[in-house]
Amino acid sequence: MRGLILASLLATCACGAGAALPAREIGRLLHDQAAAWNRGDLESFCAVYADDATFISPSGSTTGRQAVLARYRKKYVDKQGMGSLSLDIQEVRSLHPASASVVARWTLTWPDKPKAEGLTLLVLTQTPDGWRIVQDASM
Amino acid sequence: MRGLILASLLATCACGAGAALPAREIGRLLHDQAAAWNRGDLESFCAVYADDATFISPSGSTTGRQAVLARYRKKYVDKQGMGSLSLDIQEVRSLHPASASVVARWTLTWPDKPKAEGLTLLVLTQTPDGWRIVQDASM
Repeated sequence: MRGLILASLLATCACGAGAALPAREIGRLLHDQAAAWNRGDLESFCAVYADDATFISPSGSTTGRQAVLARYRKKYVDKQGMGSLSLDIQEVRSLHPASASVVARWTLTWPDKPKAEGLTLLVLTQTPDGWRIVQDASM
Repeated sequence: MRGLILASLLATCACGAGAALPAREIGRLLHDQAAAWNRGDLESFCAVYADDATFISPSGSTTGRQAVLARYRKKYVDKQGMGSLSLDIQEVRSLHPASASVVARWTLTWPDKPKAEGLTLLVLTQTPDGWRIVQDASM
């Protein structure tokens, strides 16, 4: 999946001058986030969200990293149920050196049932601790 | 609806210093956009999208304002089918004086069938022609 993410970034990054570094850093962040998912570690998966992040999905709106984590824990009760996540980054827009937004396709696969897939739009800002997702629209 | 949008902005704007003006301008833009919808004017409704805007929904991804317009024209063939749109802005994040992102709830009502509603995350940048939507995730 690492190769997939980096290839996607190189191919489709909506790069302005100086946008390459954020795109690379964000690609790494999302790769690490997917790796956390794939080892069943929802806490690390959600550590990428800002404290006050907003998450929207067709089922509603969730505010705050802890609430986002609780939502995932309710929906995915164990590693087996979580399946295997891959992210195909389709577009990175550098809004400013300290903000960016990403469109990605997510795919979840399981050995024993059909895959699920969809799209996500993430807004990220750079903090002293690294890039953090401040808004996530996933469907 | 104008009152609704302005009240929402005042109540829930995630305002940093200097964020009030973008929030107000974006509120006005989205109000004007909804007004265009409500007079059946899809071309003006879509004029708010940047030339290279990306639009994602549960049915897929669309790239470019003209393609977004074509998608709406296919889905909403006449003013009657479009119904009446209202937008409740729930959050505006000022990412930089020239970029912002908005979470809003949209509601479509018709006189003869149940309403439809959902959430949207918009990423906007300021251009010489005003604020433009560069990414839209609607569900």
